[in-house]
Amino acid sequence: MKTNKEVTIYDIARKLKYSPSTISRALNNHSSISGKTIGIIKKTAREMGYRPNSIAASLRNNKSKTIGIMISRINRPFVSSLISGIEEKAREAGYNVIISQSNDKYDNEVFNAQTLYNSRISGLVVSLSMETRKLDHFSQFIKQGIPIVFVDRIPDKLKGYKVIIDNYAAGYKAAEHLIQQGCKRIAHFAGAQHRNVYRERKHGMLDALNDYNIAVNDDLIIDCQALSFEEGAEGMRRLMNLPQPPDGLFAANDTSAVSAILYAKKHGIDIPRDLAIIGFNDDPIASIVDPPLSTITHPAIEMGNICTERILQHITDADKKDSDAPEIITLPTELLMRASSLRHTNP
Amino acid sequence: MKTNKEVTIYDIARKLKYSPSTISRALNNHSSISGKTIGIIKKTAREMGYRPNSIAASLRNNKSKTIGIMISRINRPFVSSLISGIEEKAREAGYNVIISQSNDKYDNEVFNAQTLYNSRISGLVVSLSMETRKLDHFSQFIKQGIPIVFVDRIPDKLKGYKVIIDNYAAGYKAAEHLIQQGCKRIAHFAGAQHRNVYRERKHGMLDALNDYNIAVNDDLIIDCQALSFEEGAEGMRRLMNLPQPPDGLFAANDTSAVSAILYAKKHGIDIPRDLAIIGFNDDPIASIVDPPLSTITHPAIEMGNICTERILQHITDADKKDSDAPEIITLPTELLMRASSLRHTNP
Repeated sequence: MKTNKEVTIYDIARKLKYSPSTISRALNNHSSISGKTIGIIKKTAREMGYRPNSIAASLRNNKSKTIGIMISRINRPFVSSLISGIEEKAREAGYNVIISQSNDKYDNEVFNAQTLYNSRISGLVVSLSMETRKLDHFSQFIKQGIPIVFVDRIPDKLKGYKVIIDNYAAGYKAAEHLIQQGCKRIAHFAGAQHRNVYRERKHGMLDALNDYNIAVNDDLIIDCQALSFEEGAEGMRRLMNLPQPPDGLFAANDTSAVSAILYAKKHGIDIPRDLAIIGFNDDPIASIVDPPLSTITHPAIEMGNICTERILQHITDADKKDSDAPEIITLPTELLMRASSLRHTNP
Repeated sequence: MKTNKEVTIYDIARKLKYSPSTISRALNNHSSISGKTIGIIKKTAREMGYRPNSIAASLRNNKSKTIGIMISRINRPFVSSLISGIEEKAREAGYNVIISQSNDKYDNEVFNAQTLYNSRISGLVVSLSMETRKLDHFSQFIKQGIPIVFVDRIPDKLKGYKVIIDNYAAGYKAAEHLIQQGCKRIAHFAGAQHRNVYRERKHGMLDALNDYNIAVNDDLIIDCQALSFEEGAEGMRRLMNLPQPPDGLFAANDTSAVSAILYAKKHGIDIPRDLAIIGFNDDPIASIVDPPLSTITHPAIEMGNICTERILQHITDADKKDSDAPEIITLPTELLMRASSLRHTNP
């Protein structure tokens, strides 16, 4: 198949019998060219497939009016809501959004950073992959003054804009709720502890247990990699085969919590009487499973909105002065009580 | 905040006290430069944040080694599996992937097309938005010889590579299954009929009813826009209030089918005895709802693999001769029987 040559202003000039400089000025809405001529030239340019110098222009002024998103996995409801929030504010401001996912692999994240950097994005929103520990791949953006907003899974050390939920308070609330439902032996499906979100959720939970004088038992803490469906079932198998199984479970995500409910149903474990369960995220599966899953909700769309606002504010402020936007914004979460944890008769 | 100037080969030359042409040749691995010098120059370039001419290079040879994806919504399990399939093959070949979603809006799709066109992608995979009827926004790619693969929701008229499932056969199979379970009054949640996938599913279903001499009743066909959760509940309300409610339901996606199951449970309708239900897609919710949902599975990852292979093959063939790859590839689906449609005693 034939690949056409790139259409240039010289081609348009030849076709319309104008000078190339007239074409160039018309395409840039120069006041020396009449509105009618501008209209004709732009129409012809469009028909010929001319690309309005956006790459050349972005080489000059470094602005593509595009926000890049680097995310772990798009197939998580939290992530797709976050992206919707970013897009919503971006489209309002005439910016577009391109997305790349790391599938939780560090190597992919580095490759994605390079691709987005080469696309001359105006700003970057990042939620780190599960594997990521080194952060060198972000220095190219920082050196070029391209604003980065880290969201949800943020780096501990790198400075920059950060938008997170209060994972510590959420973990505390989840455990406190189970305690108030009468649970005495509370288990936890914990995520990777080098990621802030999972470390903080566990930290909040452990502090709640301490505050209420509930013993912390290491056997009841199940360390997961991805909090997958499979890990949820395997975690339940280990917990329910303990000499003293738990009577409450806080899972750090809904996927593993729903898996725990399905495991319990298969093995005759009554939810919530034998085991009260609470998850995290309020994914659609949480309200579809039977009994419906208690969980923690977070304002994913609002988080996305704020990410875009930070980038747009940075771009505006960069023309004037240093930005005085706060570095870290922390949003609250809510406890959503459903049948999986609400016991009809508290002991 | 200060925005740094773009680092050029002249800056690197100044720093290393080499000529700019030596820097340029080293960065392009020219044989006249020693491996050791190439190493030093590349390391310095990296440290200084130099962007390896990829945009200038892509202006020249029009290859960014990036595949663009234009998709309706990333929050559908089918879509995220499709994207995984595209990425898998792309990464194997050293290509990266950037994704944009239309949220089923035509205007967004046009904007996304422009953004990806300006990013100089090597190829494009497209699944049309629910709204899209005009296709002019793809002509810029065609004019430039950039390969497009349409997948799943494809245009009826535009020529090009297309990768689809056999929606007609799947619709036929779904209806036939309900008939074999003893259903006599079969309802359908139909999607937008200007989109091939929903039109074909309905067409297959109606032909099955005709072949088995089951009457087609217009009251039992519910026209949906997005086959949303809300539309599923509203469709059930209308169907179950008919003088003669249906005893079987084929929903064109799992979301509306799961909504139907939840509606039935709330209203004391026994699934599958009073109403046998089958959905489409095998989303995770299909196996989590109680009773689990019968559905149609499709090879989403394989579809994604094929999309990338088509693009890579086109790029390779473009250097040689016209491609002889088939224009349309149709993949089979499978019927997945679960408790929502399997009656213990067939009449």
